Amino acid sequence: MQCEFDRTTAVSRRSGEPGRQATYDAVLDPGWVVGGGVNGGYLLSVLGAAVAETSGAFGHPDPFIVTAHYLSASRPGPATVSTSLLRNGRSLSTVAATMTQEQDGADVPRLTALASYGDLHGLTDEVATTAEEPDLPRREQCVHTSAAPEDFRRTAPLLDRFDLLVDPGCVGWALGEPSGRGMLQGWFRLNDEREPDPQSLLLAVDALPPVTFDLGLIGWAPTLELTVHVRARPAPGWLKLRHATRNVAGGYFEEDCEVWDAAGRLVAQSRQLARMPRRD
Amino acid sequence: MQCEFDRTTAVSRRSGEPGRQATYDAVLDPGWVVGGGVNGGYLLSVLGAAVAETSGAFGHPDPFIVTAHYLSASRPGPATVSTSLLRNGRSLSTVAATMTQEQDGADVPRLTALASYGDLHGLTDEVATTAEEPDLPRREQCVHTSAAPEDFRRTAPLLDRFDLLVDPGCVGWALGEPSGRGMLQGWFRLNDEREPDPQSLLLAVDALPPVTFDLGLIGWAPTLELTVHVRARPAPGWLKLRHATRNVAGGYFEEDCEVWDAAGRLVAQSRQLARMPRRD
Repeated sequence: MQCEFDRTTAVSRRSGEPGRQATYDAVLDPGWVVGGGVNGGYLLSVLGAAVAETSGAFGHPDPFIVTAHYLSASRPGPATVSTSLLRNGRSLSTVAATMTQEQDGADVPRLTALASYGDLHGLTDEVATTAEEPDLPRREQCVHTSAAPEDFRRTAPLLDRFDLLVDPGCVGWALGEPSGRGMLQGWFRLNDEREPDPQSLLLAVDALPPVTFDLGLIGWAPTLELTVHVRARPAPGWLKLRHATRNVAGGYFEEDCEVWDAAGRLVAQSRQLARMPRRD
Repeated sequence: MQCEFDRTTAVSRRSGEPGRQATYDAVLDPGWVVGGGVNGGYLLSVLGAAVAETSGAFGHPDPFIVTAHYLSASRPGPATVSTSLLRNGRSLSTVAATMTQEQDGADVPRLTALASYGDLHGLTDEVATTAEEPDLPRREQCVHTSAAPEDFRRTAPLLDRFDLLVDPGCVGWALGEPSGRGMLQGWFRLNDEREPDPQSLLLAVDALPPVTFDLGLIGWAPTLELTVHVRARPAPGWLKLRHATRNVAGGYFEEDCEVWDAAGRLVAQSRQLARMPRRD
């Protein structure tokens, strides 16, 4: 049986040619809703599935670089992804992709992205990473998101799509005592023990709560832009996720995510710019 | 008299409407060449000038987020920038823009970008930056790029477009003794004492040499993708630039740049993914 992640991110080609201009149908699953919107990493995974078919036709099935601008709030239900090949290079294909949804009879753009895909199998073995792997407590010492209050979980079915075990040193905000450091980290695994792959890393980079929770700002922080660099094929097993912000200013904040695999490798880096939650 | 930066990044509208779909003519100036290519930050500034006219028609003249994928090597000479408005929101307009150059009778895409522009004057005064301002020696203690060997400068007319005063702790590579930390920092000011503004920050984030120099890899490191977040209008005066990499792997590296203004404010953050220089 197909895993939940693959089933809910599937796209089917309606018209056009993979590798050139094409249109894909998708259905945004209500299970990925959080706080009234659809999770941005899930949207990127759906869009990425269409890009992978487009670029895969040229031997470039894996995301290397995806940059997405979020244009309006998506809703569960039918969506369309249009792709257009911009470059077909030796190591990378670059595709423009836009997801739209019909609303009041008009096609409304939800997110638009530029995506450079390649073949991660083809990379050299060279690794000289100076970033340090997150030092996480053992999983049995972490806080499962199923421990979140019932009324919170009701607005966040997203939390039932994966196991997210948060470092207990990063959950003070849940008790009204945020650390103020602007950092969140935890263990992550998709439902159905679905092993991580380059495609699911597009989801993983946006799976933790907004880092602003750790600053005491509990609320919806709309992503304006999200850039992901996938740097290696992840090993099977649990991923470590780490979110941090260094520049909260002018009503916006940047949020960096690192994804480390079970082999201790930094497999994805992302940065997003998001709007601060309103202080109510 | 117009400053060099403004003169060499000027665009003129050939057709279309600012604010919708339009086409702009530009001339890529040979003064911005480095190592056989045209500097990526300069290209972004030219493209940004076209976007600013497009989004400026909606009261959104300033870059907030620019994500660019570099598709082929640009050359000095005529270029065309096509812009298309994707969203006209309350605080941001989002524009797709592509720069092309004619080559052997065909229009070849050089870089393609998504750009969300707004009005930086309209931001709140809130600042809670935990990033630390680079600790740079006084300018008279730094190494001016005019000290570079004559045969290097001949291939890098870019170095004559601005004053770049590099921290002497980051120039070991010039003496064959790179620090290996993967960090470069220095003071930056455009020619003609042209004061920094949001537009020129698109250049500043790509003005330092590749951070791989500090790893002992002296050579051309082609940018594949560059994302810039402009977070505030810079104060007049010298800028501090800081480049760092944390993940050199598989033949690629990410390079983060921070730009700090004379008032001690983090005014821009960027990240690029680039290909490692070949070890010759």
